[in-house]
Amino acid sequence: MGERAFAPQLPVLLVEEAVRAALNEDLGRAGDITSSATIPPEATATALLSSRQDGVLAGMALARAAFALIDPALGFEALARDGESVAAGQAVARLNGNARAMLAAERVALNFLMRLSGIATHTARFQAAVAHTGARICCTRKTVPGHRAFDKYAVRCGGGANHRFGLDDAILIKDNHVAVCGGVAIAVERARAWAGHLVAVEVEVTDLAQFAEALGAAPDAILLDNMEPVAMARAVALNQADNGGRIKLEASGNVDLSTVRAIAETGVDYISTSKITMAAPTLDLGLDVVIG
Amino acid sequence: MGERAFAPQLPVLLVEEAVRAALNEDLGRAGDITSSATIPPEATATALLSSRQDGVLAGMALARAAFALIDPALGFEALARDGESVAAGQAVARLNGNARAMLAAERVALNFLMRLSGIATHTARFQAAVAHTGARICCTRKTVPGHRAFDKYAVRCGGGANHRFGLDDAILIKDNHVAVCGGVAIAVERARAWAGHLVAVEVEVTDLAQFAEALGAAPDAILLDNMEPVAMARAVALNQADNGGRIKLEASGNVDLSTVRAIAETGVDYISTSKITMAAPTLDLGLDVVIG
Amino acid sequence: MGERAFAPQLPVLLVEEAVRAALNEDLGRAGDITSSATIPPEATATALLSSRQDGVLAGMALARAAFALIDPALGFEALARDGESVAAGQAVARLNGNARAMLAAERVALNFLMRLSGIATHTARFQAAVAHTGARICCTRKTVPGHRAFDKYAVRCGGGANHRFGLDDAILIKDNHVAVCGGVAIAVERARAWAGHLVAVEVEVTDLAQFAEALGAAPDAILLDNMEPVAMARAVALNQADNGGRIKLEASGNVDLSTVRAIAETGVDYISTSKITMAAPTLDLGLDVVIG
Amino acid sequence: MGERAFAPQLPVLLVEEAVRAALNEDLGRAGDITSSATIPPEATATALLSSRQDGVLAGMALARAAFALIDPALGFEALARDGESVAAGQAVARLNGNARAMLAAERVALNFLMRLSGIATHTARFQAAVAHTGARICCTRKTVPGHRAFDKYAVRCGGGANHRFGLDDAILIKDNHVAVCGGVAIAVERARAWAGHLVAVEVEVTDLAQFAEALGAAPDAILLDNMEPVAMARAVALNQADNGGRIKLEASGNVDLSTVRAIAETGVDYISTSKITMAAPTLDLGLDVVIG
Amino acid sequence: MGERAFAPQLPVLLVEEAVRAALNEDLGRAGDITSSATIPPEATATALLSSRQDGVLAGMALARAAFALIDPALGFEALARDGESVAAGQAVARLNGNARAMLAAERVALNFLMRLSGIATHTARFQAAVAHTGARICCTRKTVPGHRAFDKYAVRCGGGANHRFGLDDAILIKDNHVAVCGGVAIAVERARAWAGHLVAVEVEVTDLAQFAEALGAAPDAILLDNMEPVAMARAVALNQADNGGRIKLEASGNVDLSTVRAIAETGVDYISTSKITMAAPTLDLGLDVVIG
Amino acid sequence: MGERAFAPQLPVLLVEEAVRAALNEDLGRAGDITSSATIPPEATATALLSSRQDGVLAGMALARAAFALIDPALGFEALARDGESVAAGQAVARLNGNARAMLAAERVALNFLMRLSGIATHTARFQAAVAHTGARICCTRKTVPGHRAFDKYAVRCGGGANHRFGLDDAILIKDNHVAVCGGVAIAVERARAWAGHLVAVEVEVTDLAQFAEALGAAPDAILLDNMEPVAMARAVALNQADNGGRIKLEASGNVDLSTVRAIAETGVDYISTSKITMAAPTLDLGLDVVIG
Repeated sequence: MGERAFAPQLPVLLVEEAVRAALNEDLGRAGDITSSATIPPEATATALLSSRQDGVLAGMALARAAFALIDPALGFEALARDGESVAAGQAVARLNGNARAMLAAERVALNFLMRLSGIATHTARFQAAVAHTGARICCTRKTVPGHRAFDKYAVRCGGGANHRFGLDDAILIKDNHVAVCGGVAIAVERARAWAGHLVAVEVEVTDLAQFAEALGAAPDAILLDNMEPVAMARAVALNQADNGGRIKLEASGNVDLSTVRAIAETGVDYISTSKITMAAPTLDLGLDVVIG
Repeated sequence: MGERAFAPQLPVLLVEEAVRAALNEDLGRAGDITSSATIPPEATATALLSSRQDGVLAGMALARAAFALIDPALGFEALARDGESVAAGQAVARLNGNARAMLAAERVALNFLMRLSGIATHTARFQAAVAHTGARICCTRKTVPGHRAFDKYAVRCGGGANHRFGLDDAILIKDNHVAVCGGVAIAVERARAWAGHLVAVEVEVTDLAQFAEALGAAPDAILLDNMEPVAMARAVALNQADNGGRIKLEASGNVDLSTVRAIAETGVDYISTSKITMAAPTLDLGLDVVIG
Repeated sequence: MGERAFAPQLPVLLVEEAVRAALNEDLGRAGDITSSATIPPEATATALLSSRQDGVLAGMALARAAFALIDPALGFEALARDGESVAAGQAVARLNGNARAMLAAERVALNFLMRLSGIATHTARFQAAVAHTGARICCTRKTVPGHRAFDKYAVRCGGGANHRFGLDDAILIKDNHVAVCGGVAIAVERARAWAGHLVAVEVEVTDLAQFAEALGAAPDAILLDNMEPVAMARAVALNQADNGGRIKLEASGNVDLSTVRAIAETGVDYISTSKITMAAPTLDLGLDVVIG
Repeated sequence: MGERAFAPQLPVLLVEEAVRAALNEDLGRAGDITSSATIPPEATATALLSSRQDGVLAGMALARAAFALIDPALGFEALARDGESVAAGQAVARLNGNARAMLAAERVALNFLMRLSGIATHTARFQAAVAHTGARICCTRKTVPGHRAFDKYAVRCGGGANHRFGLDDAILIKDNHVAVCGGVAIAVERARAWAGHLVAVEVEVTDLAQFAEALGAAPDAILLDNMEPVAMARAVALNQADNGGRIKLEASGNVDLSTVRAIAETGVDYISTSKITMAAPTLDLGLDVVIG
Repeated sequence: MGERAFAPQLPVLLVEEAVRAALNEDLGRAGDITSSATIPPEATATALLSSRQDGVLAGMALARAAFALIDPALGFEALARDGESVAAGQAVARLNGNARAMLAAERVALNFLMRLSGIATHTARFQAAVAHTGARICCTRKTVPGHRAFDKYAVRCGGGANHRFGLDDAILIKDNHVAVCGGVAIAVERARAWAGHLVAVEVEVTDLAQFAEALGAAPDAILLDNMEPVAMARAVALNQADNGGRIKLEASGNVDLSTVRAIAETGVDYISTSKITMAAPTLDLGLDVVIG
Repeated sequence: MGERAFAPQLPVLLVEEAVRAALNEDLGRAGDITSSATIPPEATATALLSSRQDGVLAGMALARAAFALIDPALGFEALARDGESVAAGQAVARLNGNARAMLAAERVALNFLMRLSGIATHTARFQAAVAHTGARICCTRKTVPGHRAFDKYAVRCGGGANHRFGLDDAILIKDNHVAVCGGVAIAVERARAWAGHLVAVEVEVTDLAQFAEALGAAPDAILLDNMEPVAMARAVALNQADNGGRIKLEASGNVDLSTVRAIAETGVDYISTSKITMAAPTLDLGLDVVIG
């Protein structure tokens, strides 16, 4: 069995809620007044939703929902699926139906699709750069407020892995926590004592001395923050010797497309970066009316 | 009196609503379990919110709200204001109070502040490139769903101007509308007849022939889409001759930091681009505990 | 092409949200206990929704949604459309289906329909009184809180025009703003400098001296507040001489069915009044079970 | 002890929720752009909220909340209370503080206050017309969707009484229910059997024959719908003879200021009319800046 | 006609709202990650929802909604109805469709169904214990916050009666109110004067002296709180003599399955207890996949 | 350092939201009409919130919020803290202020406090029964819809541990998942491959053969479902031999106060039961006015 047996899945209830809010934001109190003024109410059209660039698609369910919420009768035929590579010029969906409804939902559909496909595409670039290693690219909690479920889903579509979805679903002990507790070991011990048995514990270290202390406390994962590749490679070796690699090692800090390969080659399991969620260029997509 | 008499202002009710949603997203059902496990409930701290890069600040009200919603007693002293240029290393706010509350709100505060400051900073870069002309950089409706009021506010903080906030607050006639109506002039006429007297009408044209037709219909503004600088300069001259420049001219398409100067020098009034909202790198800011 | 090429359109997402809230308000925690106690759950009925008075219909989409949200299987056949004149005794919809569902939704459907038809009918009365002139009757922001999109839609159904939908979609400089700025001209200038290029600017004046100053500032519209007809006629003439009537003139103050004709005959473009939204008698409609 | 021992009270949580929604409706995504453009952010003002007409005040808590939600620091000193008669020109509140905040909330505050004071004033007119009798004027469920708690509160402020707040808080058996059940008596019996012991039961009758049948079923109240005064007087006498007046009698249908006196003089306990909630002219109030 | 002509009915709009919230609570930001990881997206299954215990069923509409909101295409065939007695091992619904959707909604469906069936079952136990008398078992306002409509519906399914749904739908004068007013009679009088004519008034008494005073004030009901059976029987006799039993008598305090029979045999009309809503054991139900 | 270094903490934003909804549910459209009718608006009172039974307190923040949301000026002095043992008759809070506000919030405050204290108390009973072992009592996802965060917090207050808060925060592979995957080992492997590195994986087994297979797959935890104590003890021994007890063992099924001791003595780490959340009797608390 390969790494990704099943495609990532978006929680269906979140999709409708987010798209409804976005449509309300765009349509305001008076709706699409340009179309109301210039397009006959009964006019129909056929249109293609196409990519203008090469990339990885993500967010089709949100685009589909945007059109369906405005007009359930509007036809939306998907021609590509989330996670697929698409080429510049490739159509990803065909729409057919009321012209006003199509134009009213267009921008919201595209705003979701362009952002999420941008994240998926950028993640895929990072993942491709480390494909010869066992490292997985991983997102962080640096996501756009209100979009975390979607942003993390797009990372999955691009082949990346997910870190915590919130402050509540795993323990990540950082420098401030260590400082208050008086050491890495005592912090991990407190976390273990406090947390339920299905809550994972990770601790951040910044040098090999801290790493050694962390190893002794046996967390589920250790985050190597801003360490040099040579030090990270040493940590990987120590970890293998200590526990056969059961404790997962994650690298963070100074990660970009020029550095990620060297980081991956140290043997770390995960490389986390906010670049894929907060600095991903959008993938350009557009709607073209083919039969007006 | 100069161009920007008063600073832009964020609708106060939207701030609390958005920050509350973001905090709920991050804290989930169990809250900040790392701090709950490792930080004593009564621990206090003093921290600085600082920029790691040069840029333009935007979003302080959202950051302030994030901390206040978790703990109204937490001190938040602003050391800089939205729209100000900040330097790498400069503190923009000093926080003082309960340590758990500070850490629980940190990420949400920073996610807003980094994104909006990124937009303001990128807008300022574009605006600086055209400072020797009369052109204003302008955003579009390509904004992150649910964040439009904030994204457009950040554009203002960076010295840019705002386009429509939604489909309902002005008429922008695009190619599809023109096609259905059978011409630029008839489309503008329909829009005028339909709209209230305080609704502005803009029409998109792609060449000088369409531009001439548009001039005859006397809209409030004309959008020159993907036209060459030489054609745009010609449109500017024709517009001046026709109405003394009362009709505003907006340029769009193929706008980036390498092209924007030449576009501005054609004499257009506005240059709109989604780059400033959808492709702005975040401005790196961080929270540093100075007294634990 | 005539003035109203296309019928007004209600934003579809707002309809469901408002009707859902109204049904929850009426049904409370226990629902329609009268029907639960006295009508068999499987009973069906056919009923007619009829007007008891002559008037103009508005709000059919809200009525339809009220029945559909309680029971999607309930048949609702519209026999008239928004904007149509209806006569006393005329059926506007035929309903068929579960009797309890019909009675549970009846009051909410009627409350919306009676209010909006009342607004449309009253607007039509004002508009008819000025039909021999070029003036359009126009609403204000004096609308029932939470109902603005619907109230303004009903004004359109009655043949009237819409003013601003909110404080955010055009600039209307009133006496207080002028006082703070120190004059009409400086106020308009500040507004122009501040606003995006698709934001219209209107300024209120109360006498011909202010009007002359306003003309010089070239706003998009001037509001003649509480001026005598003779003064308004003079303003119309001055406006024609200055700019050929490009600047729109709006009259307000002391507008009722006995005065509106004389105001219109001054030649103003718009006459705004809160009477049509805040003092319109409801149009009486009722539901009659024809087959129990 | 008199009839109205204590003043009516608005549920506090509903106030904030409704006012927040109304402010969001008016301020939209961009806020009060006129004030943002023309009023300095630090400008302060003192203003009076005054009545332009004689009437009965209602809705001060909503007005207060509108200003407080925009700016908690804004001073709001009430000079009159809900339920009080106010004279044209009388100030009902003094405001002091930030000028932009005051203008941003003004319209929402006034829209609530003018509508509710209009309802209270109109109710007081009806109640005054029947003051020489024991009859109480009473509202119905014909209220503006989403405003029922407020509309009914305003009726109380005007000296009227409240009918059901919704379909769930009492049983009112109308003609359709009677028709399905096969008679007034069986309908009342079913209602009694179904309902909890604190649920009142009222039945509607349209003639004296039905009234006699209703008396036999001993409901809590009987609604005399569209009956002539002479028939109503006869019903009052029969009721007195049957149960000493314990069953309350309510009159409805064809109620206006010209008919209400004669109806009241029949001796009925309550006279219900939608006129007071759906056809009440607003009471004109305004905000005047006294120190800019 | 018997006591319960028609089955109780749940307000349909409340169902969807509550189930949607519950699903969001359970699925969080990432959804059902176990099924996403281990079940193929296209896998289907057939399953039975069965009771593990004897009891009375309640809540099928909520269970149905849970599955439908996750996947409208999922088949849900009800095999039993609310209010029916079910036996251990009996299937109450058959499901057919997407396996992931079925497992994602399972827990929410069961949590509603088990709680409400538990309430119905426990109510039926109490009601059975008093079946030889005319007494009805009745719930109170001691219900789980946010679940009142559902809890009270389940009481109805179990054969019990409903008391007030909230503080707003009837007047229940307790010891504190009596103390402030200075007596039972004056308190009832104030309540009558204040309340609309369809608002029932009940007063609580704790001994026969207070009961006699209450009788004189003629409320709709009298609550005998924590009185001995012999005193309650005396009150029943006095009530019969005074008004023929028109005033309803309700007993409360020290009600459990061992005491309820003796209380009922005093002749009171209602016996209210929070045991049926706050101390009802859940009825065990489960979902069994029969064809994977 | 002991097991529970710091007290559990409720997410502050969830508290206000839940209490606000509960107050709206109880107060409806008309509010507390009993107090409005019988208590003077300016009346004040001092009251004690006291326990009627021995137990463990939980939910004080919700009680405090109920009073504060109705009247921020109401004094609420906590006399005990969540997690403390309280005795019958012991006061847990003293209230002082407006009498109407106090009575309006009383029921909501008590409904939260009684339920959560009931859960804490029942959990403490189970935990006490196993205090001589290393086992921790643990809740499940069988919680009241909408109350999970509170129910799980109360379990913590009673000394118990928390299991998953939702389907999204850990993987728990049950029999259905195993059946689809074709075995315990393959299911765990798929889960590991799919999940992020901070997502724990637990697998359910029902006999020692499955347990052995599970051990080989090295999940984070193994759930022994409905196994006999002797088999569980054997599993504990095998686990110790295999991995030194690093994999946590959880027992479930047939857990009650009569069986839990024997289960704990097998050496399992956790014993999970829905009894503590779904079958906990409420702890009786009440509000007594001491100075009216």
